[in-house]
Amino acid sequence: MADTPYTPPDVWTWAPGNGGKFASTNRPTAGATHAQTLPEGKHPFQLYSLATPNGVKVTVMFEELLAAGHDAEYDAWVIDIGEGDQFGSGFVEINPNSKIPALLDRTGDAPLRVFESGSILLHLAEAFGAFLPASGPQRTEVMNWLFWQMGSAPYLGGGFGHFYAYAPEKYQYPIDRFTMETKRQLDVLDRALADRTYIAGDDYSIADIAIWPWYGQLALGRLYGEAATFLDIASYENLMRWAQAIDARPAVQRGRMVNRNFGEPETQLHERHAASDFDTRTQDKIGDQ
Amino acid sequence: MADTPYTPPDVWTWAPGNGGKFASTNRPTAGATHAQTLPEGKHPFQLYSLATPNGVKVTVMFEELLAAGHDAEYDAWVIDIGEGDQFGSGFVEINPNSKIPALLDRTGDAPLRVFESGSILLHLAEAFGAFLPASGPQRTEVMNWLFWQMGSAPYLGGGFGHFYAYAPEKYQYPIDRFTMETKRQLDVLDRALADRTYIAGDDYSIADIAIWPWYGQLALGRLYGEAATFLDIASYENLMRWAQAIDARPAVQRGRMVNRNFGEPETQLHERHAASDFDTRTQDKIGDQ
Repeated sequence: MADTPYTPPDVWTWAPGNGGKFASTNRPTAGATHAQTLPEGKHPFQLYSLATPNGVKVTVMFEELLAAGHDAEYDAWVIDIGEGDQFGSGFVEINPNSKIPALLDRTGDAPLRVFESGSILLHLAEAFGAFLPASGPQRTEVMNWLFWQMGSAPYLGGGFGHFYAYAPEKYQYPIDRFTMETKRQLDVLDRALADRTYIAGDDYSIADIAIWPWYGQLALGRLYGEAATFLDIASYENLMRWAQAIDARPAVQRGRMVNRNFGEPETQLHERHAASDFDTRTQDKIGDQ
Repeated sequence: MADTPYTPPDVWTWAPGNGGKFASTNRPTAGATHAQTLPEGKHPFQLYSLATPNGVKVTVMFEELLAAGHDAEYDAWVIDIGEGDQFGSGFVEINPNSKIPALLDRTGDAPLRVFESGSILLHLAEAFGAFLPASGPQRTEVMNWLFWQMGSAPYLGGGFGHFYAYAPEKYQYPIDRFTMETKRQLDVLDRALADRTYIAGDDYSIADIAIWPWYGQLALGRLYGEAATFLDIASYENLMRWAQAIDARPAVQRGRMVNRNFGEPETQLHERHAASDFDTRTQDKIGDQ
């Protein structure tokens, strides 16, 4: 940026192309850009996603449900956001917001669209009666933290992550702003986990399943290059303990592989249609991104 | 910002004081800074809040519940975030994230904390069976949009609003980034409202109650100075229709006044303990902020 002060115009106009990573797919309008029918498989649940943190929330949820004995078989299909798949007509019908993950639930009378990762987690938790109490104080505490994740992670991902790792230049003011907020959020989690095994209490819940892919994987050094050092992640000891405990869950290790089209080849399972799809993969080789 | 490229350090350290508006209360740590007991009134629900968009969600919800005949009497107390009330020990016990709104529900066996505006709306909707179907496809669609609001508004408030209106300087790159995303979100809403009365369908729901205080009030020119012009808000015609229709609801007009300690004096009702508290106010004088 130049020393000359910037004066915004009265009415903003779009000048494409200077948005850093993902600039080619960011735009100021919504809606479909092209006709594109989505594939459908044989299972009741059709997931259209990618193994970003928001996507991993849902694949972990499905794998946890299956591991707990629920009949939650699903087909998972890659939406390549770098290729603009999220702007295809079929995807936009399921999620008008053009973001992964999106779910088509075919268990009812008519196919039902479910979008926003938090909504998908809640929908599946209520459908199977799992990872969320049906009523009572503990349900409320889980929902407090699920909504906390939804409202907080944009500052981590769209704020800190973008300006620290993806923006075309390093701008100090936004980096300072979003780093401060990210560290505050890490401290919120660390304090909550000081006297609890999981974020909402004694039981693993959809709050953990939502929070771990962002804050757990950040703690484990998997997001945004050297961010774990920059944020002094090791100082959040309770968070580190929780992040490592969840990382060791087999369902989490499987969930991380689904819809993954980046990283080491043996960590990628582009599509998932059956439990046996994991057999040809070496789960414990999933390393840092 | 200087022409000299900024190179982030290996480990970030806090330099207080250069954060623009609200800089004095933003910090990189969580937890209470001082002992401060919260007041409690006579009603089952104790709300600790402020009439920002996130606060208005909940006061509108209470006023809508009361208008619909539910026994949702509440005491509303101001949390002055400019004075640091959100870091008081009593408030942090209810919301460890130190953000308004926070609710204490005393209807059960033990006082229950509810934090995050989305969690409060869901909790009240389930408690009273109102503004959210108990099950079925329409419940899912309402939750899709409620979670959409939670994940989207940080780009409007913490992104666009901050860099357009509150940051100490105008930085073009962040303004462009967050303006593009805000306009995309406005277009998402405008397209959804093209063939629906309310955001999730034919019925007014907690999705509208969550979205209106941000995107409705933005459309009505009440947020961030000249932002409505800058964003060409008038071009989103379906959104404008919806914003005006909800603005005309008496419960919304009352909800906007509660915990309001800014604007014209006759629009402010700092504390709310009874329906008659509004009698001394002139509701239709609530103007633009």
